[in-house]
Amino acid sequence: MGATTATAAEGCTMSNLADDAARTDLLNRLRRAEGQLRGIQRMIEEGQPCLDIASQMAAVRKALDSTYVRMTVCFMQQELQSRLGMGEGKDGALDALLEDVQTLLGKVR
Amino acid sequence: MGATTATAAEGCTMSNLADDAARTDLLNRLRRAEGQLRGIQRMIEEGQPCLDIASQMAAVRKALDSTYVRMTVCFMQQELQSRLGMGEGKDGALDALLEDVQTLLGKVR
Repeated sequence: MGATTATAAEGCTMSNLADDAARTDLLNRLRRAEGQLRGIQRMIEEGQPCLDIASQMAAVRKALDSTYVRMTVCFMQQELQSRLGMGEGKDGALDALLEDVQTLLGKVR
Repeated sequence: MGATTATAAEGCTMSNLADDAARTDLLNRLRRAEGQLRGIQRMIEEGQPCLDIASQMAAVRKALDSTYVRMTVCFMQQELQSRLGMGEGKDGALDALLEDVQTLLGKVR
């Protein structure tokens, strides 16, 4: 319980992502989105049809949304472990649950 | 009416944006969004709090959405003129209408 209290005290600002793999995953997603965004600028410069540009813009939006969800799920996983002391559970039960949560959040946004 | 028929014939693919000012506006918006996206990558690399990153991601999403709406309204304006032969109308009545449409579309997305 001592750890929980300490976390609550420093919990005024929300914590960052400590896991390197999670951060790398987010960075890769954002880099891809940045590339897509440059592609759209090229399409506008080249005078491509509005409908094609619209499709690409929708794709970037989707990529950003799934990055957002991914960040939230990574955060959830990290905080379940650090604030509530949850480990992997049996047979990766926590990972499986979080994967379901990610799917659910992916539908709504 | 001849012009309308010609437009309909080539209308299998949706047309592009012909207006340079409109394209420049879209390009500027996308460049700003690209800069914001790079800023988010920096924030992740520096280990900023998830909440701050989330705010910035929401801002990029909003910027992309308003770019999308802007493109749609520019397209609408152009096609009203080219397909239906509408001009500026009296006292910029068309511009005023399209501004209202842009506001409405901005609310829903």
